[in-house]
Amino acid sequence: MAEAITSREQDYSQWYNDLILKGGLADYSAVRGCMVIKPYGFALWENMRDQLDKMFKETGHVNAYFPLFIPKSFLSREADHVEGFAKECAVVTHYRLKNDPNGGGVVVDPEAKLEEELIVRPTSETIIWNTYKDWIQSYRDLPILVNQWANVVRWEMRTRLFLRTAEFLWQEGHTAHATADEAVVETRKMLDVYAKFAEEWMAVPVIKGVKTANERFAGAVDTYCIEALMQDGKALQAGTSHFLGQNFAKAFDVKFSDKENKLEYVWATSWGVSTRLIGGLVMAHSDDQGLILPPKIAPLQVVIVPIFKNDVEKGMIDNKVTEIIQKLKDLGIRVKYDDQDNVRPGWKFAEYELKGVPVRMAIGPRDLSNNVVEVARRDTKQKQSVSMDGIAFYIQTLLDEIQLNIFEKARIYRDEHITRVNTWDEFVETLENKGGFVSAHWDGTAETEDEIKAKTKATIRCIPLDNEEEDGVCILTGKPSKQRVLFALAY
Amino acid sequence: MAEAITSREQDYSQWYNDLILKGGLADYSAVRGCMVIKPYGFALWENMRDQLDKMFKETGHVNAYFPLFIPKSFLSREADHVEGFAKECAVVTHYRLKNDPNGGGVVVDPEAKLEEELIVRPTSETIIWNTYKDWIQSYRDLPILVNQWANVVRWEMRTRLFLRTAEFLWQEGHTAHATADEAVVETRKMLDVYAKFAEEWMAVPVIKGVKTANERFAGAVDTYCIEALMQDGKALQAGTSHFLGQNFAKAFDVKFSDKENKLEYVWATSWGVSTRLIGGLVMAHSDDQGLILPPKIAPLQVVIVPIFKNDVEKGMIDNKVTEIIQKLKDLGIRVKYDDQDNVRPGWKFAEYELKGVPVRMAIGPRDLSNNVVEVARRDTKQKQSVSMDGIAFYIQTLLDEIQLNIFEKARIYRDEHITRVNTWDEFVETLENKGGFVSAHWDGTAETEDEIKAKTKATIRCIPLDNEEEDGVCILTGKPSKQRVLFALAY
Repeated sequence: MAEAITSREQDYSQWYNDLILKGGLADYSAVRGCMVIKPYGFALWENMRDQLDKMFKETGHVNAYFPLFIPKSFLSREADHVEGFAKECAVVTHYRLKNDPNGGGVVVDPEAKLEEELIVRPTSETIIWNTYKDWIQSYRDLPILVNQWANVVRWEMRTRLFLRTAEFLWQEGHTAHATADEAVVETRKMLDVYAKFAEEWMAVPVIKGVKTANERFAGAVDTYCIEALMQDGKALQAGTSHFLGQNFAKAFDVKFSDKENKLEYVWATSWGVSTRLIGGLVMAHSDDQGLILPPKIAPLQVVIVPIFKNDVEKGMIDNKVTEIIQKLKDLGIRVKYDDQDNVRPGWKFAEYELKGVPVRMAIGPRDLSNNVVEVARRDTKQKQSVSMDGIAFYIQTLLDEIQLNIFEKARIYRDEHITRVNTWDEFVETLENKGGFVSAHWDGTAETEDEIKAKTKATIRCIPLDNEEEDGVCILTGKPSKQRVLFALAY
Repeated sequence: MAEAITSREQDYSQWYNDLILKGGLADYSAVRGCMVIKPYGFALWENMRDQLDKMFKETGHVNAYFPLFIPKSFLSREADHVEGFAKECAVVTHYRLKNDPNGGGVVVDPEAKLEEELIVRPTSETIIWNTYKDWIQSYRDLPILVNQWANVVRWEMRTRLFLRTAEFLWQEGHTAHATADEAVVETRKMLDVYAKFAEEWMAVPVIKGVKTANERFAGAVDTYCIEALMQDGKALQAGTSHFLGQNFAKAFDVKFSDKENKLEYVWATSWGVSTRLIGGLVMAHSDDQGLILPPKIAPLQVVIVPIFKNDVEKGMIDNKVTEIIQKLKDLGIRVKYDDQDNVRPGWKFAEYELKGVPVRMAIGPRDLSNNVVEVARRDTKQKQSVSMDGIAFYIQTLLDEIQLNIFEKARIYRDEHITRVNTWDEFVETLENKGGFVSAHWDGTAETEDEIKAKTKATIRCIPLDNEEEDGVCILTGKPSKQRVLFALAY
């Protein structure tokens, strides 16, 4: 049997780590807080990245690449930004090592000290806006619709595989516009791209909303977000899109001459999603047997396992499987034939359940003579004997069905975990016993938000974009409120 | 007109910089030695990367991702490796900044000093082999065929856009094998992949060879390489593939139990190409009017420019062009219609010549009535009036022809610049007046190689793999030699 994993009920956090480690997605590394993304995990990320990249390009964006390092002084240029990002970051102070005169390997060469320290980018607004200064003179140079796929580093004190690591992979879009309106439209457009990707590809339902001032990106005028719900009732911010106003243009003196030849500061947006999405994906769908991956982004969509007693049987199965694989590949389906002979079929079944492969096919001699194959779904664990005739189209349809089913299951869970409460007691009770999003009135002040967080650890995840106006009173202060906001405990 | 560029004859080095900067491939950045890869340059890199990635996967490799940081002590584990890489690297010593108590922005927090410094990876053998230790127990875990796309940093003192930058993008393959033979086969296989990519995709002819001990990768048993020739007669190492023996397995104690249950050290290879290839591509093909890009990797393959006097003409041209673009796109051709009205057609012609777009089509009202279009090739600058009927297939064939022609031109130049010499005087004369590869006898010692380099700056680029044995005498020492090697001045 494959290695056992901890159940969710027993220890949710350990269950998550087991899935990541034993499912072959990632490993700890020798560097504190940094992880190794293993081939299976990276193949998943490649599928996610490629689809996002396609959606960015379809919405008119192009990729570029900016330096890993940011001069220390750049961080200080935008007042809020430095508060948010300067604190925990990797600082390069020297550019050379030398042999230890005492024979202890290599040591930092004190003579190779940088005049100005370099920060390993925690995000790239500053270095990019410093560059845009050279790229933008006139309204004809606008808009600039650039995205970057990159690694970034934030020196987190407590790290968790995928969810919070010192180094992570992400994309960061940085756009420049002639008007505030156009920048806001871009900010919202990219939020929609993220939501579509999360729901249609990751099968993770999300709520689109805007952050309160407390939770805003450091340097943004408005931060929009998509919020997902995990199976333990905690929320996960899955992507953010920021309207940056003219803050970075002013910090880096980026102006353009408009059609009337008047000089104006440029308007900005930035937006990003990261390998954190993988953590959210795992926690949204998986069960106590292992990962459950949505077919659209699963590295492997189908695995075929032969059941045989001798070489003759194996040979006959091989022939049939070769035929099936060709038909599946012709439909663009990612399929693997696992005929290794050092483990038993039962071990393989458990292994591919652990890895979340959406469909498993098993073929034995009796299946061959009956012209059928056993098809097992990972999501529902249903097994069925299916005719070989038209099997490829059957599998294609089944993969679509699994994709929808995984989403529906998560959506129903999420919808059942949005609770409207009107009193403080209800609020606390819901957070403690039910979890999920708690929809409640709030008086709109940062102080109240802070106090609620201090008392319950719950934060305002967002003010949903589709909110309706409704008169009410703040659950904490009793002051008047015009709309509900969504609170939750969050990752 | 587009901005003028310096001619090769006037100043080759400035010509190169002009092409990179004015051609929109890259920009200098605020960080010493680091560049910004602009959207046009990055689109070129994406096409190269995607094709290489496809070839890696077709040869059985998978991608993964390892940490950006390497603990300082790791570098010292392999004796040669530390000599080669520890010297010029970016060293992270602290993990936090704090507000300057004297009000000068932010400063490094002296209390946030790392116990062990972290090196920004100059290459990843050490961190990867430290990881492989956990992945490899038995021969069943082998081979491991992993590649990583990543940024790396080497603190070069003199930098040049793409050719030598402090940070660059690359891929690094790191494979682990049960036998030396298998590792050598892998090393050679990847060299063949690189050569095929360089010749068939970049249209750059290369010589496959093996490096002398002096030029070997730090930590390798053998370094294989592909060497290309630039138009100024200097060579450029375009890719390397290393047989690492058991050096890294020993340094990180990575053993496996073989079929007889005996513990053995694992055999290793590593291989890489980088954004440096873009520098080589530019210098191999381009001319005094700008870039010449091979169609297979050009971001844009065809640009269409309308020639019109009024809106009526423009409308008619638009209709026809929409039709043509659809046909080109159906064939997978990357095409752009440049109908911006603030610059004249002549400006556009010069601009797309500068950018190296392989085919330009121009359409005016007379072309419309004659059912023709003017087609101009970037490589030969030939212009021709071509019937609209079957235009898409004509363009498809033309792109193939351009690809081959660019390669042939470079191949002829390269072949004409491999000179066999038998005496020191001939050697020096050829290096000084003709350039290119100089094929000469050498006595096989590092001392002679060093002395030749000191006298002429020429290095042994490689011992070609297809070398024939031939008795001769060393051009410098007169000692006996069994084969010729290729010398050149090099980037």
